[in-house]
Amino acid sequence: MKNSNLPNDVINKIIEVPKTIIEAPINLLKLLAPKRKKKASAKIGLPPGSIVYLGEKKVEKVTINVTEYDETSAESYEINSAEEIDPFTDTPQVTWVSVCGLHETDFLKQVGERFKIHPLVLEDILNTDSRPKIEITDDYLFIVMKLLLFNPEQKILETEQVSFILGKTFLFSFSEKTDEIFNPVKDRILSQLGKISKRGSDYLLYALMDIVVDHYFLALEKVEERIEILDDEVINNPDRSQIESIYNLRNLLLVIRRAIWPLREIVNQLIKDDGDLLDESIEPYLRDLYDHTIHITETIEQQREVTNGLMEIYLSMMSNKMNEVMKVLTVIATIFIPLTFIVGIYGMNFKYMPELNWPWAYFAVWGVMIGVVGMMFYFFKKKNWF
Amino acid sequence: MKNSNLPNDVINKIIEVPKTIIEAPINLLKLLAPKRKKKASAKIGLPPGSIVYLGEKKVEKVTINVTEYDETSAESYEINSAEEIDPFTDTPQVTWVSVCGLHETDFLKQVGERFKIHPLVLEDILNTDSRPKIEITDDYLFIVMKLLLFNPEQKILETEQVSFILGKTFLFSFSEKTDEIFNPVKDRILSQLGKISKRGSDYLLYALMDIVVDHYFLALEKVEERIEILDDEVINNPDRSQIESIYNLRNLLLVIRRAIWPLREIVNQLIKDDGDLLDESIEPYLRDLYDHTIHITETIEQQREVTNGLMEIYLSMMSNKMNEVMKVLTVIATIFIPLTFIVGIYGMNFKYMPELNWPWAYFAVWGVMIGVVGMMFYFFKKKNWF
Amino acid sequence: MKNSNLPNDVINKIIEVPKTIIEAPINLLKLLAPKRKKKASAKIGLPPGSIVYLGEKKVEKVTINVTEYDETSAESYEINSAEEIDPFTDTPQVTWVSVCGLHETDFLKQVGERFKIHPLVLEDILNTDSRPKIEITDDYLFIVMKLLLFNPEQKILETEQVSFILGKTFLFSFSEKTDEIFNPVKDRILSQLGKISKRGSDYLLYALMDIVVDHYFLALEKVEERIEILDDEVINNPDRSQIESIYNLRNLLLVIRRAIWPLREIVNQLIKDDGDLLDESIEPYLRDLYDHTIHITETIEQQREVTNGLMEIYLSMMSNKMNEVMKVLTVIATIFIPLTFIVGIYGMNFKYMPELNWPWAYFAVWGVMIGVVGMMFYFFKKKNWF
Amino acid sequence: MKNSNLPNDVINKIIEVPKTIIEAPINLLKLLAPKRKKKASAKIGLPPGSIVYLGEKKVEKVTINVTEYDETSAESYEINSAEEIDPFTDTPQVTWVSVCGLHETDFLKQVGERFKIHPLVLEDILNTDSRPKIEITDDYLFIVMKLLLFNPEQKILETEQVSFILGKTFLFSFSEKTDEIFNPVKDRILSQLGKISKRGSDYLLYALMDIVVDHYFLALEKVEERIEILDDEVINNPDRSQIESIYNLRNLLLVIRRAIWPLREIVNQLIKDDGDLLDESIEPYLRDLYDHTIHITETIEQQREVTNGLMEIYLSMMSNKMNEVMKVLTVIATIFIPLTFIVGIYGMNFKYMPELNWPWAYFAVWGVMIGVVGMMFYFFKKKNWF
Amino acid sequence: MKNSNLPNDVINKIIEVPKTIIEAPINLLKLLAPKRKKKASAKIGLPPGSIVYLGEKKVEKVTINVTEYDETSAESYEINSAEEIDPFTDTPQVTWVSVCGLHETDFLKQVGERFKIHPLVLEDILNTDSRPKIEITDDYLFIVMKLLLFNPEQKILETEQVSFILGKTFLFSFSEKTDEIFNPVKDRILSQLGKISKRGSDYLLYALMDIVVDHYFLALEKVEERIEILDDEVINNPDRSQIESIYNLRNLLLVIRRAIWPLREIVNQLIKDDGDLLDESIEPYLRDLYDHTIHITETIEQQREVTNGLMEIYLSMMSNKMNEVMKVLTVIATIFIPLTFIVGIYGMNFKYMPELNWPWAYFAVWGVMIGVVGMMFYFFKKKNWF
Repeated sequence: MKNSNLPNDVINKIIEVPKTIIEAPINLLKLLAPKRKKKASAKIGLPPGSIVYLGEKKVEKVTINVTEYDETSAESYEINSAEEIDPFTDTPQVTWVSVCGLHETDFLKQVGERFKIHPLVLEDILNTDSRPKIEITDDYLFIVMKLLLFNPEQKILETEQVSFILGKTFLFSFSEKTDEIFNPVKDRILSQLGKISKRGSDYLLYALMDIVVDHYFLALEKVEERIEILDDEVINNPDRSQIESIYNLRNLLLVIRRAIWPLREIVNQLIKDDGDLLDESIEPYLRDLYDHTIHITETIEQQREVTNGLMEIYLSMMSNKMNEVMKVLTVIATIFIPLTFIVGIYGMNFKYMPELNWPWAYFAVWGVMIGVVGMMFYFFKKKNWF
Repeated sequence: MKNSNLPNDVINKIIEVPKTIIEAPINLLKLLAPKRKKKASAKIGLPPGSIVYLGEKKVEKVTINVTEYDETSAESYEINSAEEIDPFTDTPQVTWVSVCGLHETDFLKQVGERFKIHPLVLEDILNTDSRPKIEITDDYLFIVMKLLLFNPEQKILETEQVSFILGKTFLFSFSEKTDEIFNPVKDRILSQLGKISKRGSDYLLYALMDIVVDHYFLALEKVEERIEILDDEVINNPDRSQIESIYNLRNLLLVIRRAIWPLREIVNQLIKDDGDLLDESIEPYLRDLYDHTIHITETIEQQREVTNGLMEIYLSMMSNKMNEVMKVLTVIATIFIPLTFIVGIYGMNFKYMPELNWPWAYFAVWGVMIGVVGMMFYFFKKKNWF
Repeated sequence: MKNSNLPNDVINKIIEVPKTIIEAPINLLKLLAPKRKKKASAKIGLPPGSIVYLGEKKVEKVTINVTEYDETSAESYEINSAEEIDPFTDTPQVTWVSVCGLHETDFLKQVGERFKIHPLVLEDILNTDSRPKIEITDDYLFIVMKLLLFNPEQKILETEQVSFILGKTFLFSFSEKTDEIFNPVKDRILSQLGKISKRGSDYLLYALMDIVVDHYFLALEKVEERIEILDDEVINNPDRSQIESIYNLRNLLLVIRRAIWPLREIVNQLIKDDGDLLDESIEPYLRDLYDHTIHITETIEQQREVTNGLMEIYLSMMSNKMNEVMKVLTVIATIFIPLTFIVGIYGMNFKYMPELNWPWAYFAVWGVMIGVVGMMFYFFKKKNWF
Repeated sequence: MKNSNLPNDVINKIIEVPKTIIEAPINLLKLLAPKRKKKASAKIGLPPGSIVYLGEKKVEKVTINVTEYDETSAESYEINSAEEIDPFTDTPQVTWVSVCGLHETDFLKQVGERFKIHPLVLEDILNTDSRPKIEITDDYLFIVMKLLLFNPEQKILETEQVSFILGKTFLFSFSEKTDEIFNPVKDRILSQLGKISKRGSDYLLYALMDIVVDHYFLALEKVEERIEILDDEVINNPDRSQIESIYNLRNLLLVIRRAIWPLREIVNQLIKDDGDLLDESIEPYLRDLYDHTIHITETIEQQREVTNGLMEIYLSMMSNKMNEVMKVLTVIATIFIPLTFIVGIYGMNFKYMPELNWPWAYFAVWGVMIGVVGMMFYFFKKKNWF
Repeated sequence: MKNSNLPNDVINKIIEVPKTIIEAPINLLKLLAPKRKKKASAKIGLPPGSIVYLGEKKVEKVTINVTEYDETSAESYEINSAEEIDPFTDTPQVTWVSVCGLHETDFLKQVGERFKIHPLVLEDILNTDSRPKIEITDDYLFIVMKLLLFNPEQKILETEQVSFILGKTFLFSFSEKTDEIFNPVKDRILSQLGKISKRGSDYLLYALMDIVVDHYFLALEKVEERIEILDDEVINNPDRSQIESIYNLRNLLLVIRRAIWPLREIVNQLIKDDGDLLDESIEPYLRDLYDHTIHITETIEQQREVTNGLMEIYLSMMSNKMNEVMKVLTVIATIFIPLTFIVGIYGMNFKYMPELNWPWAYFAVWGVMIGVVGMMFYFFKKKNWF
């Protein structure tokens, strides 16, 4: 197993990109909301199982990439219609059809007919607002997942829907717009590296799901980075704008949590499934995946609690700042108001004020005033206000 | 399956209407409360199973619409009494009796007798304050749901009770006042479009429940819109009235949650039921419905957390405003109180004050005062108060 | 079934009374606490199963009312000792013995011996601080419930303990002081109205439990009324005393919740019980009762959340009031402190102050001051302080 | 059953003592902490099952009291070593060995060897920081409980560990320092009163556990008393020191909750156990005990919520006090700052100020100032500041 | 069993060291974060089961220590490669291979091949960011735990990963850098003390896990110490920096909780496992371990609640300080502002001010002013401001 031969440039590209992002996840919620809204209204009244794509058209052209492999050979090419799939579906080779872009529904309809996929499954693939889910039938296994991806141009964290249909010798993967994240797996297949080419379509499903899950770790790293930055800022330089960042961070964590939470149950059902589609030897891998999803959900919960703590520390810091302002006001007022009263006394115009005529009176007043200031300082010192 | 043939105008009507609503969901709680109160008191002492309608009379006249259909034909007409149902109940055709308005209980009593419905079921149909529930017997299946609907005139979100009684070849649906929301289904039946006319009463029940559930998505969209508006307002222009809006939004979410929460269990029981009333082929549809209810409850929980966050951000914003007020006071007081003291000194009337006679003393005092102001500004700058 | 024939005056009496109550539930907690305390200490060291009554003597005289009925006849009379029960216990007629007042334990001991009731059951009847519970044996079924009742004189919500012992043909009900709430049932029995006289002791138990549960709805209505009043007051006229009302309301909800929470489990066990005591036909009624208890617990949880929100809105309102106070102070100080400084300048007594001799200087100073005030107003306007 | 014959003086002693306590539960946490710390560190590296006592030596001398009884006779005496137990272990009489003081481990080792007790059980008896637990083997049943007791000298609530080993005809009870709380039971045995002498060692175990549980009620009464006192104080006279009392009360409730929480599971396991050690007739008693533990845990949860509410009301009260202070400042400043400005005007020394020479000007200024004060008062009245 | 013979110096060293630590756990989160981040990114795209070490190189040289023992003899020596293990793996003696340092993966690969360990298990050993877990196969049992250890130089609490592979006659233990904590066990084996040398590899596993768990108690003691210090500080001398300490303490508790939480399930699975690897006699020990983990998780939850309470008390204390500041300002301003007004009156230059010419007027003004001050003091006294 030579890791050095692996397509490291692909890995590096993925790792490096996000480093420049999530500087401003503030717009996230607003970006997601319009999409969701449109769909919810549009669905009412449509008969169940209608194969209509209601999401945004995120890529110009739908691309369908086919990768066929077994232990001895592997090849990859693009196709245009479902008819081209036919010849290779009944070979013992594993056939991986990766569809990127969902706005052309014809291909999906053809697949649905040829592979006898339930219309509701096809509807779920197109409804990019679905909840992550798993459907297990005798003939195929259907999984919907959410992919968390960084958009380096808009500097936001995007959710995208990824679906898989697993058959005995084939796997369909559907992405809204990003399928490059699966390239490391494709490269490993084509270079016949690692054990992936020796194993069936179930291992391929696991490998793709593993990549999706690994991207959650990446997203949470970004969140953690941001928490640390905010943490430093809030403690060292609390400021009005941070409350908004904390609020947005919390909402972001809510969105991420919702994408990941159902995954636990999905992987658990995969482990417990004893149908023909999953080989027994895949179980340790699925349990590993299950551990990862638990690890992620625990990290999210921890980050949520840390963010809540951050909110409290922010509020306390702002209140401390207010305290400082009040102290300045109080010190100034407490020192000068009595002094102003003293000078006011000798500004009075009474005819009979004996002090006014004493030669040293003016200087005595200065003495009294300096004494008052001294007492004030002593008092403030004792109260620890400096 | 031609979606373009569907009664799009009906869909559009439903989608467009709410766009102008929920501008003021503030009155919601008060509107619902009186109704509920009246009933709770009125129930005490009545024997269980009393068929009395205690709710408001929401429509002038009770309308009873019957739709009969099978794969080959479909017809729809209005009837006036339960006797008219008899002839068609024992045909293999599916008979859908849609009752709108509950204040005439005679029809219900007749139905109860003819179809051997338990008195408690009839009581639950009339008690519009029931909790969503399911009752499964050998002969029929009874479901109570809450419908969330926008009232465009009063600009509020209303809850209404919808009940279904499903038999082998018939379905009764009872609405308090709105049955137009079921029109898309009726239109699909009458136009013999889609698979609904090829299937039994169980699929009809599913189709109607699906429409009720779809309206929850609509309600939550409205809530989401409102959260976004409030979000913007609170961050950009925090104001005393927003707290009331947030508080009302939270109470609204509590009401919605209570309407939806039991639905999960209801749909789950439908899925697990292995009686004769539900065909096996209906299960994927019910599971889809189940996913939708989970999706909705998750959205509500998320919205509740966002609203809680909004409350915190509001409180912080108000406290920031107070901070601003305090800063202005402190800056003004800190600058002018010492100056007033200085001018006070030379307002004193002592006979022996050497400075008073110096020719340039007045201008020196101005110099000192400008110096004090300068120092203050430097101090405020350092404290980041500007 | 003629509802109009029902003893409506009885119903009305019950409904009307509470309308004048819960004006001041503030004293509730203090009223309940002493009772509970006394008992807890007194129990230590007593052998388990001691038949001692440790509660307050709430009624002057213990009354024991017996109602015997079957489908054909019904009669009701008072008795004085347990011996008088003997003759009618072995008849097929249903015998309902309603005991009001618990401080005379002899009757209970006689009942315990004659009906072979476990001493711990008798102890639980007398220990009015028991938790709601159910005990199912082969021979009888024992239920403890809490009754929530309004005391119109002291204007508080009181909890009272009600216990039932159900045998095959008899039912004992024990109340601390109020048994009038069961009068509607007795009236229906004696007038041979409704199905109650056609059914056994199990249906009688259900009817009595149903009345106790209905009183919870009444209590929650009162709480809801109070929440609405507080809601209005807090939003329109926040005031120091409201915090105490909210705090008391929350404690009241805690007390109610504790009384009702175990009921869910009790009714659930009744439903699942397959002994001889409960006829199968009673099950739909029990499931209805179960739905009611769930409805009540959900209402309590909702009211608790609303009350928590009320607390937050109260705190925010009080903080808004403070903000108003600060603004007034700041506006006044910010306007007058600079003006006072200006007039102070020309109060100085320097010999060489050119302005003092300018004829129009005094009016110029007025001009400057008016200009300063104008600027301040513009500033406050911009800050939205008016 | 003659309750009047019972050792009432013993009961009274127990009930009276705590009346003078928990005046200051503030030191509780600090008192418990050192003990726990010492043990945790000292355990590391020791082989499991080491019979070493690591707690404080709480009593001077270990006392071992043996009570033997059956239906016909009962006697009680002190012994010094485990050898003296031998003669009476194989008699059908119940033998209750009550050990008070744990710092002499020899006796325990002898008991361990003679009665074949697992070393880990012996270790748990000595480790007074154990969690309440139950161990059921074929030969014996081992229970660890926490006893909550008032220390009237130090005025604190103390936790102490009590362990029981139940065999077929014997019961060992181990206390750290207080075994007088079991005296009522011993007295009942020796006076052959009640049913305890007619029953086996299992009933004895129940009777002792019941006493421990009854002491929890007592502790919670004390907490309730304290909550009520604080409640009154916070509402009527909020004060800086109360926050500390509330905080300590909450920590105290955490400690009590931890001591009681596991008890529920312990009693539940006793109920479900179908070994030889527990007779079937004991079950109603255990279920009664179970109800008590649930009652206690519910009371603790309620008290925790009340205490949380108390914290909120305290914070609100303190903020109200601040509000009062601000109002006083604002009223004073708002009235006098404008007046000071007015008098400042006529303190100016301009040559040409027409008003200065008007004879009635001084009185006019007084008129103006009184007018200003009047307006201010009207304004404050309108704002409800008085 | 002679405890005095035990390597007390080792115990003491462990106990003493931490006494000087956790003075500054503030840096904890930042220290852990970089490590975790690096790994998450680096994992993406790597094939599952890659045996690569991605953590820090924490020790210079990997050391592999082998301890072989049975009831009669025991010896311990260092080895360099997996080949040296071969001769002793098939003897009935227990072989404990303790590996310290993970950056040389060759040894692990050899072990993997020779003992047929699944690649994912080997990956988990190297991935020091794994979640605590257990894997049970027919041939071996794999456990990952987190060790909480104090770093006396950096004064922080560190987490380190410890893994165990248990076979029928061997045990592998893998530490990142610290294996001295296991020395007490090794010493007990080599000195043939206690029952450990009479028992199999399963008891050895238990003994090592017990030591890891005991270190959690130590960590929680340190946290408790710190809570107590903060507690004192916050109540007696609240200060801006404490909020940061409380926040860090909460985050520290989150980290500890995450390390310990899964342990409960791990030990529970060990108890329920009925494979060949664990002897039945080990069960009481495992149940004891289980009780300890529950004890620890309960302690953490309690400490979390106490820390939350600490946060609230801190906020209240800071708000009290602000209150004090406001009171000082208000007292000073309320006393001197009216006085300044009075002296201002007689500073006016009106020609006709009768008072100015009264001889005793000046002294009368002083009298009035002293009267005003007296009234103010009376008012403040009444308000309890002193």
